[in-house]
Amino acid sequence: MSNAVTITAPEGLPFIDIEREFNAPVDAVYRAYADPELLKLWTGPNGYEMEITDYDFSSGGRYRYVHRDPAGEEFAFRGTFHTVRENEVVIQTFEFEGFPDVVSIERMTLTDLGGGRSKISGHSVFPSVEARDGMIASDMETGVVEGYERLDQVLAAG
Amino acid sequence: MSNAVTITAPEGLPFIDIEREFNAPVDAVYRAYADPELLKLWTGPNGYEMEITDYDFSSGGRYRYVHRDPAGEEFAFRGTFHTVRENEVVIQTFEFEGFPDVVSIERMTLTDLGGGRSKISGHSVFPSVEARDGMIASDMETGVVEGYERLDQVLAAG
Repeated sequence: MSNAVTITAPEGLPFIDIEREFNAPVDAVYRAYADPELLKLWTGPNGYEMEITDYDFSSGGRYRYVHRDPAGEEFAFRGTFHTVRENEVVIQTFEFEGFPDVVSIERMTLTDLGGGRSKISGHSVFPSVEARDGMIASDMETGVVEGYERLDQVLAAG
Repeated sequence: MSNAVTITAPEGLPFIDIEREFNAPVDAVYRAYADPELLKLWTGPNGYEMEITDYDFSSGGRYRYVHRDPAGEEFAFRGTFHTVRENEVVIQTFEFEGFPDVVSIERMTLTDLGGGRSKISGHSVFPSVEARDGMIASDMETGVVEGYERLDQVLAAG
């Protein structure tokens, strides 16, 4: 059994909060975000290919990637990294290019749980409650759940 | 009489909305943001000096500046530019370094009102309603009102 994902979308507020524990230490989880060769192994729903076209994982940096579904349809995402602090916190913007100018900002915090375990806490903030609701309706949950399960495998492979 | 500033902080939502008209065309207002030599003439409350230590006004770029009050106290701010589209829209992150990791995201839209007039509409989104309330309590209004009055002068000087 993999660890459960908790996704919270509070009524009337433009937030999505995500929590997930990992049976791996903080620095390994951080590395799976920092290294684009690892990132593309696990991000997004099962069966998608991920091409990273831009990745400067540092404070003030930026990123862009394209997900390709099994039918070949492409979904591009881009943003900036406001803050990147090793093994601690990443604050980044996020835009699906299919909905231009609807830009959210996410703070991801890594917590050491001891005993070689760790937790990711994500707090995403959208420009409106409607934009938040649209993200939930897009079935982001599948991508989050399946992505973290593949991250478990990346971490297990060390 | 200068044009009035409208600042809206909706109850229970982490937003601040700002509207201000200018007796100058959109491209002149845009230039006053794009050119750091102009920006530092007008941003912030009266009597402060502004030093811009980093300014890449482009999609994926970043900025940092320091305001120095008449007593010599310094207040530093930094962020990234997610989107910069000439004469249209700027989407940027914003952090007061005195409150680290409390990062907002602002979308500024420029509208051509015709007859050489234009409007700035700002929509700022904070990571919590409390952080939004803290920004309002910091008397940001004085900086916005006085800054836009100095921007009027910069625009009048052409």
